[in-house]
Amino acid sequence: MKVALQSLSTKAPSDLQKEEVKEETKSILKELSELQNLLYASDQHSILVILQGIDASGKDGAVRNIFSSLNPQGVNVYSFKVPNEKELSHDFLWRIHAVTPPKRMIGVFNRSHYEDVLSPRLNGNCNDQLALQRMEAINNFEALLANHNNTHILKFYLHISAEEQKKRLEERMTDPTKQWKYQANDWKVAEQYPAYLKLYEDIFEHCNDIPWHIVPSDQNWYKEYLIASTLHKTLKKLDMKYPAI
Amino acid sequence: MKVALQSLSTKAPSDLQKEEVKEETKSILKELSELQNLLYASDQHSILVILQGIDASGKDGAVRNIFSSLNPQGVNVYSFKVPNEKELSHDFLWRIHAVTPPKRMIGVFNRSHYEDVLSPRLNGNCNDQLALQRMEAINNFEALLANHNNTHILKFYLHISAEEQKKRLEERMTDPTKQWKYQANDWKVAEQYPAYLKLYEDIFEHCNDIPWHIVPSDQNWYKEYLIASTLHKTLKKLDMKYPAI
Repeated sequence: MKVALQSLSTKAPSDLQKEEVKEETKSILKELSELQNLLYASDQHSILVILQGIDASGKDGAVRNIFSSLNPQGVNVYSFKVPNEKELSHDFLWRIHAVTPPKRMIGVFNRSHYEDVLSPRLNGNCNDQLALQRMEAINNFEALLANHNNTHILKFYLHISAEEQKKRLEERMTDPTKQWKYQANDWKVAEQYPAYLKLYEDIFEHCNDIPWHIVPSDQNWYKEYLIASTLHKTLKKLDMKYPAI
Repeated sequence: MKVALQSLSTKAPSDLQKEEVKEETKSILKELSELQNLLYASDQHSILVILQGIDASGKDGAVRNIFSSLNPQGVNVYSFKVPNEKELSHDFLWRIHAVTPPKRMIGVFNRSHYEDVLSPRLNGNCNDQLALQRMEAINNFEALLANHNNTHILKFYLHISAEEQKKRLEERMTDPTKQWKYQANDWKVAEQYPAYLKLYEDIFEHCNDIPWHIVPSDQNWYKEYLIASTLHKTLKKLDMKYPAI
């Protein structure tokens, strides 16, 4: 799909009341917990939640606030960092495939295989042609999971404004509970805001038909509501049943 | 490629002298050992040798007689059995991808992902449509390894005659050094000879353009010569160099 990210709002619709939405999210999370139990018991499907977004877009917070309420026995979260030497001696999807969710599980990827068509392109380690080849490999890989293991893939792009990103990166220097996230190159990251948005648009354009959910994420409460309700709808649609004896 | 296996010889060409060919294989294996060292040192490529063939076609013997002479630090052999419960809770390529060879290594698959479009089709666990979907996934998977990790894939089909298979299965009952291979359903396997050949022809027809080497395997010395020389040619073509300081 063709998307112009700069033209998409990063904010919650103005007619929404924060407190009401938070209440709604709470009740969704409660139901999610039951649906997760059913997913586990029925043992037919798996869920893969992919969280992508530029630095400080709120991926960690989404993991903490949405998936904490679920039974951890049925959830595996993986945060992908810069690949290590062993990972680099394999194709780029090797380390990803190894931790894809088996049936009955919810896998959460905090960053994912999409990183391989993001920062390497800015660092000069991946040209346009290789990026296209990687996108094709990614599309085939996701089709494998979807068609051969009933994996339902939910892709979320957390969309924040340049101003919001700057504000959050500043907080990393001043807020003692956030300083551990501060990195020396945070300011460079902020400068790359428009470049990253272009790369994400390129991903959306070349991806398969498993949709990307573009989540306005300047307000965490709205972001969490959207992710939780999308996951809820997905599980609901599976029409699962507890197996009889 | 379209192949009529029943019309292809399972025997070595009659003008070949067994002892001469065995000498030739010996000298190839010696050179292979040097080429393997270069593959390891140059750290740019990986090799995946896939050995397929019906029961008693000589896959174990090929592993033993060809790869024993190489440095085991640079060779990993995997024998794929019936998938266990954990493996079945993932897509069928998950367990395969996990053990694909990293750069500098030679991976040997004694049976492989192709098993998923063989016996399940005879057991009624995989219909024609699913088999085609699996073949497409296999083709994409091999392209991932080839294009994104410089993996050179060598696919060997060990072709033996129905008579040779029967003879070898009988030896499993009488030869004390082979009895450990005997399985109660060996006679059923022999009956399925024509069915298996049809399934292999179907694989060859729907595979990508990474070629299958159909190896006449009634005589082990000829089979070993062909596999060793194909591997030798492949490594030679890579034009590798020892890295300088």
